[in-house]
Amino acid sequence: MLYDLIIVGGGPAGITAGIYAARQRLNTILITKGFAGQIARKAVAIENYPGFESTSGLELMQKFENHLKKHKIDIKKDTVSKIKKTGNHFLVLTGGKKEFQSKTVIIASGADPRPLEVPGEKEFIGKGLSYCVACDAPLYADKKVAVVGGGNSGFEAAIALSSWAKKIYIMEASLKPRADESSQEKAKKSGKVEVITDAVLKKIEGKNFVESLIYQDKKSKKIISLEVGGVFVEIGSQPATSFVKGLVDFNEKDEIIVNPKTGETKTPGLFAAGDVDNVPYKQVVIAAGEGAKAALQVSNYLQKF
Amino acid sequence: MLYDLIIVGGGPAGITAGIYAARQRLNTILITKGFAGQIARKAVAIENYPGFESTSGLELMQKFENHLKKHKIDIKKDTVSKIKKTGNHFLVLTGGKKEFQSKTVIIASGADPRPLEVPGEKEFIGKGLSYCVACDAPLYADKKVAVVGGGNSGFEAAIALSSWAKKIYIMEASLKPRADESSQEKAKKSGKVEVITDAVLKKIEGKNFVESLIYQDKKSKKIISLEVGGVFVEIGSQPATSFVKGLVDFNEKDEIIVNPKTGETKTPGLFAAGDVDNVPYKQVVIAAGEGAKAALQVSNYLQKF
Repeated sequence: MLYDLIIVGGGPAGITAGIYAARQRLNTILITKGFAGQIARKAVAIENYPGFESTSGLELMQKFENHLKKHKIDIKKDTVSKIKKTGNHFLVLTGGKKEFQSKTVIIASGADPRPLEVPGEKEFIGKGLSYCVACDAPLYADKKVAVVGGGNSGFEAAIALSSWAKKIYIMEASLKPRADESSQEKAKKSGKVEVITDAVLKKIEGKNFVESLIYQDKKSKKIISLEVGGVFVEIGSQPATSFVKGLVDFNEKDEIIVNPKTGETKTPGLFAAGDVDNVPYKQVVIAAGEGAKAALQVSNYLQKF
Repeated sequence: MLYDLIIVGGGPAGITAGIYAARQRLNTILITKGFAGQIARKAVAIENYPGFESTSGLELMQKFENHLKKHKIDIKKDTVSKIKKTGNHFLVLTGGKKEFQSKTVIIASGADPRPLEVPGEKEFIGKGLSYCVACDAPLYADKKVAVVGGGNSGFEAAIALSSWAKKIYIMEASLKPRADESSQEKAKKSGKVEVITDAVLKKIEGKNFVESLIYQDKKSKKIISLEVGGVFVEIGSQPATSFVKGLVDFNEKDEIIVNPKTGETKTPGLFAAGDVDNVPYKQVVIAAGEGAKAALQVSNYLQKF
């Protein structure tokens, strides 16, 4: 069976691409390990997707998923391990050892949390080290915790944690937090958040569970130990793109370089949309818009196929 | 009073830019003659804005407007007649003879319906000639009408009219309708729609009210008169940009040329988003995404201001 389109990923970009493709009557399959994307891991309310004044990441993504499933589209719960171009077609191989063929592909596989890459990180995953505040915050009731990363997601994590933890340190490597003013104000209001800047994380320590983190103060060069019962990692994300090497160009962040008007990559018939591409701002409404563009461009491309 | 940002326009792009700007704590004013944009004129259901399986243009835009108004932002009901750059600032002059000053401007003024430019058009506006199916369809109950334009909006207009009119002709200048398959199928199902292709509209005739339209069949060169009680114009739109000439570059469609990653125009501090710019696909979710990008880029720009 030759599909018109294979969509890789089930976040805002992939789902929107799916809705648009189905409405164009494209014979489409969407492959994803699950619906949601980064956004469902967010623990704070989503208040910037126009039309919904305030909702949760999970609730919004459930609405997206329901919207998609109203349409005629195949959905396969699987991961993608490799995409190959064979003549005029694409061959998509999955972790579940299946093969799918199609005329076009939209990569909307999003991004995964960027790891700290310090000693202790791997050992303590699930034992005090977490990449998901929405999942794990309640485990830290009345504890001291650290959030590594002073950007928007770090501050959002700290705000969410402030309903549970008794003290939250935000660790930021640069001289000033990079988060929006509004997020910084909210964090301050909680009375529980302390921001430690100019700090380079060195190590995470503990016996069976995280007990402290070790950082260096950049200016004084001093090594400091901070007693915490949990560490949340919020230092950005890395695009999930290893399966498509050779067919696309990457920027310095490993994001797929696209024509931002259309989602086209350097390989004709291969498109990308959402957090996986090199459009600078990572937002639900932006990813959704990119998914729509890519699907409409696929439809155009197929008319000349 | 010097604003951080003036947003011109209250459609999906302008409203989303407003939500994002307010959340960045930018001191912002949004100038628009009214909220909604093109989309509120749509008579058929909106089924491709992710998260809302089916809604009306008016209902969706009401949600956008309410979402915006939850935030701290000045709103001025007025039109913009001229934008000037004076030194480091922008001066925005309105039809209501007001002046506003700011550090940055986002133009999100959308597009107006493109006129037919044939004899009879101007005389019959409001007397059988309409640019707004959502407004006027019920006036044509049990009448024969024509829709000029065989793209998506032409077919959508015909589908909406099929609840009222007894017969709808779609007039298309090229050899094949350009609408989505799904819209063409829906129109066919109504049993009331006839598509006339390869037809060039020449004239609209009548006494006090539209009685017929005259077109030429391109192949046979024959001039043909079609008896209709109404004509709906759906041949696309033209960007509302006359007030910004000199500060931006335009493409051949009079759309403002932007960096599609950021909404930047050739003038630093001046941005554009939505139907007014040269991003190819005109959709609510795409316009909203562009509005978000532009506002985030404004915030970046102001940090270096």
